[in-house]
Amino acid sequence: MSRIVDFGLPIVPSTSRLRPLGLGDVEILGGFWGERQALNASTLIAHAQEWMEKVGWIANFDHALDGTLVEKRRGREFSDSDVYKLMEAMAWEHGRTGSAEMNERFEALTRRILPVQEPDGYLNTKFGRPGQQPRYSDFEWGHELYCFGHLIQAAVARARTFGRDAFVEMAIRAADHVCAEFGEGGRDSIPGHPEIEVALAELGRLLGDDKYIRQAALFVERRGHGRLRDIEWGRSYYQDDIPVREATVARGHAVRAMYLAAGAADVAVETGDEELFAAVKAQMDATMARRTYVTGGMGSRHTGEAFGEDFELPPDRSYSETCAGIAAMMVCQRLLLATGEPQYADLIERILYNIVATSTAEDGHGFFYANTLYRRTPGELPEKDVPSPRADSSLRAPWYDVSCCPTNVSRTLASMASMIATTGDGAVQIHQFVPAHIRAAVADESIELDMTTNYPDDGIVRITVVSAPTQGVELRLRVPAWVDGGATLAVGDTVVEVAAGYAHAPRRLRAGESLTLTLPMEAKWVHPDPRIDTVFHQVAVTKGPRVFALESHDLGADVGRAQVDVAAGLGDGVQPEVAIRLVAEGGSGWPYRAAGDAGQGEPRRTTLIPYHRWGNRGPATMRVWLPMA
Amino acid sequence: MSRIVDFGLPIVPSTSRLRPLGLGDVEILGGFWGERQALNASTLIAHAQEWMEKVGWIANFDHALDGTLVEKRRGREFSDSDVYKLMEAMAWEHGRTGSAEMNERFEALTRRILPVQEPDGYLNTKFGRPGQQPRYSDFEWGHELYCFGHLIQAAVARARTFGRDAFVEMAIRAADHVCAEFGEGGRDSIPGHPEIEVALAELGRLLGDDKYIRQAALFVERRGHGRLRDIEWGRSYYQDDIPVREATVARGHAVRAMYLAAGAADVAVETGDEELFAAVKAQMDATMARRTYVTGGMGSRHTGEAFGEDFELPPDRSYSETCAGIAAMMVCQRLLLATGEPQYADLIERILYNIVATSTAEDGHGFFYANTLYRRTPGELPEKDVPSPRADSSLRAPWYDVSCCPTNVSRTLASMASMIATTGDGAVQIHQFVPAHIRAAVADESIELDMTTNYPDDGIVRITVVSAPTQGVELRLRVPAWVDGGATLAVGDTVVEVAAGYAHAPRRLRAGESLTLTLPMEAKWVHPDPRIDTVFHQVAVTKGPRVFALESHDLGADVGRAQVDVAAGLGDGVQPEVAIRLVAEGGSGWPYRAAGDAGQGEPRRTTLIPYHRWGNRGPATMRVWLPMA
Repeated sequence: MSRIVDFGLPIVPSTSRLRPLGLGDVEILGGFWGERQALNASTLIAHAQEWMEKVGWIANFDHALDGTLVEKRRGREFSDSDVYKLMEAMAWEHGRTGSAEMNERFEALTRRILPVQEPDGYLNTKFGRPGQQPRYSDFEWGHELYCFGHLIQAAVARARTFGRDAFVEMAIRAADHVCAEFGEGGRDSIPGHPEIEVALAELGRLLGDDKYIRQAALFVERRGHGRLRDIEWGRSYYQDDIPVREATVARGHAVRAMYLAAGAADVAVETGDEELFAAVKAQMDATMARRTYVTGGMGSRHTGEAFGEDFELPPDRSYSETCAGIAAMMVCQRLLLATGEPQYADLIERILYNIVATSTAEDGHGFFYANTLYRRTPGELPEKDVPSPRADSSLRAPWYDVSCCPTNVSRTLASMASMIATTGDGAVQIHQFVPAHIRAAVADESIELDMTTNYPDDGIVRITVVSAPTQGVELRLRVPAWVDGGATLAVGDTVVEVAAGYAHAPRRLRAGESLTLTLPMEAKWVHPDPRIDTVFHQVAVTKGPRVFALESHDLGADVGRAQVDVAAGLGDGVQPEVAIRLVAEGGSGWPYRAAGDAGQGEPRRTTLIPYHRWGNRGPATMRVWLPMA
Repeated sequence: MSRIVDFGLPIVPSTSRLRPLGLGDVEILGGFWGERQALNASTLIAHAQEWMEKVGWIANFDHALDGTLVEKRRGREFSDSDVYKLMEAMAWEHGRTGSAEMNERFEALTRRILPVQEPDGYLNTKFGRPGQQPRYSDFEWGHELYCFGHLIQAAVARARTFGRDAFVEMAIRAADHVCAEFGEGGRDSIPGHPEIEVALAELGRLLGDDKYIRQAALFVERRGHGRLRDIEWGRSYYQDDIPVREATVARGHAVRAMYLAAGAADVAVETGDEELFAAVKAQMDATMARRTYVTGGMGSRHTGEAFGEDFELPPDRSYSETCAGIAAMMVCQRLLLATGEPQYADLIERILYNIVATSTAEDGHGFFYANTLYRRTPGELPEKDVPSPRADSSLRAPWYDVSCCPTNVSRTLASMASMIATTGDGAVQIHQFVPAHIRAAVADESIELDMTTNYPDDGIVRITVVSAPTQGVELRLRVPAWVDGGATLAVGDTVVEVAAGYAHAPRRLRAGESLTLTLPMEAKWVHPDPRIDTVFHQVAVTKGPRVFALESHDLGADVGRAQVDVAAGLGDGVQPEVAIRLVAEGGSGWPYRAAGDAGQGEPRRTTLIPYHRWGNRGPATMRVWLPMA
């Protein structure tokens, strides 16, 4: 077992403005996210593994060995990747806690997969055997390189939490196979689903071997020239319509678009390609300004699971796939490290609280694949024992025919300590607010910090310097963009008002000293850009990083009838309270008339709930955007 | 050649409140629809035939004979049906004008298809030969019964415009095959795409043979019990989720839903099944009140080409498939004849002017498959020489991989004289306003009427009685529901104000007398039900039966930036004029803010165009619903 460099870090750019701190540096100690990490460890990972055993996706590897795979194979063409994503989650989880059980789970799966790899490094349960489709016969839909990508990402996690074991060596052989097959002079092809790019780039960083980064760059450069077949949804579906460095905004399948952007960002950083980096950054900035939901969700169309046009953000048909949110966080983390600009950490926070936290049922046994902002009819309770065939299942289902999201949540929760803090510019930056113990080094000098907070229940974040060099430590704390005045930083008696962005502590802090960031955690009305026509003249309520929702359990009526009286204000309790009037329920005539109807009668004051909590009390209607009376 | 009964009538209920008048009774003489019928005769039918030759859908029949079909077959599994729909159009067109050319086209196609029918009556180019899938091996997607349905509908058209020729006999053999195969004791199956029901019911009426109506009833009753496989979109996609007589609103694939409703209405009428009829009527009434666009379009989702939930009517992603509009007209015509209620003729009118008229390019060489209410980015000109792979092609394409719509438009235009007038309750009813010569019989006495009008350019409709029995004729004219006061009926000096519904002429009219209906043809603001959240606080403009649209050619800017000043009024010219303010163009930041933005600067007065005219001046952005400043 080799020495572990960069312990517990999903990404380690060779050069960056900010240096990430990994699972060995940041320990999350309870709170909102600590609870979810615990649920992941106790429930989500086991739940996913049990389902993948039950539906036969893991057994595919066994059948590959006993020769019965052709008749017995189960799952879609990308099912191998979910096993790898689960293993990535196990690897981070073992890295996070040292859990022997997680390590054993990982190794047991390794033993089943390892013998399936072919001598030349190829590994896939769907292709290449007699009676199966040949290898690389379907770049549009085959997902072979996508599966390799997740295999390699799992291996990077394993290497950075355990070391180079047999699983890691297997992934390296697979990556070598990919380079041999698709390198310069090899097959001039790209996969329908990006993912290999981001994986190869990180493997290159892990091993310090440019070969893999060059291969990732090749895949990035090849895309956008029409190598993939035109389909009903157009080549934009797989971003093969416009070269990456010429595109101006994300489009097509949202997960594909974001995985590609993450990989392109890595390639740009590692090759010093400023033009490519600027293109990826500009695309992401435009996507955030024009194609992102107030929840941080991405993907406006069920058709093609895709981004819509600019400002096409319908609440009811919001796809906002959980995986797209996670993929967008991957892009944001890369841009944050490279630029130090706060909007990327802002979006990570928004996605964490409103997509990642929303996706999973509070008991850990159900998941949203799509995260709608408006459920018009009470969802149906999904069946308990069969995977849901519907991505837009109306309530959280225990498993899906396409079940990419649960394992994506698991790997994200297990590794999320890596998104809390960084070092750079001679300082420590705090990006996300969680109770945590943080170890860092600035100018080779060790620093330890304790962060305590009830965030997001309140906005008070206290950082205590446990140890620091004698000159003290310079701290910078993100003041989220949702702050609109009233945030302060206090060190002793010195209290300064701070604006959105990275607030500098008023002075260096020495061991034993502490600093308090106070963010105004109050409910607020949020108005959409008027070009987002499908929520025109409607408002949402946010409180800190969280978006709130009106659920029919609280309203006592179908939320589709609700109109909100903004002038009546927002109640002050733990949960915002609003004044709602109901429009008439009936309506059997032609619905286009000479005058618009308004809500009737006395307004009822109704509590909103955090969006991430909706759908946990049984079938309900729910909406985030409320028409203004 | 047998005697032709009920000349030129698509449907002839054995019992009904109103009796339709067919192509032999009503001659459309120019005007808005006469021009379109002429374009159909001169261009659309030939265009469709040329494309179907070019893409090989007609040649499939030839290849079936020369044994090369397996390798040479072109088109989707339902391509035979488009050939039959084209032949239906030719049959009506021959019936309408007596065109020898149309007759020859029809007969030439008959000669190519006839020999392909198998001895037991089966006929399909996609299934059943060595090397093809077996017959009836894929009820969900195979479309065999759908193709038979269109074959039979074409045969009904032929029989009612020409007589029982070889084509008609072929269709009867096919229908007999269907009854033998799927009758009581036969295969207990239903097709994924309804259409056979409405076709068999009409064949039963044509031949006076209950067998076909019983078979149609069987298909109707079998549906809704989960005989078809569950799919990602659910069994509602093909209406196999709820029995027809228990459903309360249309759902799933819009064309499927409407073809089924038309067939179920026919079955209910012919079998005297009042419960079934009431169910279909209630479904249609609910669909009109909660799931229909202001254009009369149906289908809110590209995914599954489907109805959305109640009040889910997004303008930009409006699917509003042309075929769904036509199918809804088929339902309306049946409900109108059965009940005499005006809302069905109102919806037929709305669909005619805003879906059927919109679908086809003004030069007759392009078609919209989907009819969006908001085009956000300038559409791309489709390629001229290849079928479009995209149903939501951004501008009218000459042909589609799935090209059901052009031939549906053709058969509708050629037969639309049958929707103009009826007899019943001792009167003649005028439902649609076109320049026309009308022959009818009331109580076995002949009546001739001349209708002259510039409708919808103005609202003046003059009916002159050319001949009538001595006691005169009782006339009833539809006053559309869009009339909101100000409509009058005048006979000589007697002028009475009339309200929406069927206005009775103030007295019987004798030969030589005339009557004038004056409808206030003025531009009006229309407000949506507030539950249609995606157009909340937005208005549309209508003028008579036509919906108007803002196109960027007239605005001189992207319509996405438009906000309308309703208080500034509607200009009075031929085309309505509105006052538009533009919201800021830029926007690179987070689009959810503490306050909403409003349009800036002096409003510009801008002309609207009839929605059906949009997209004829090259790439443009366009919207029907305008946010209120």
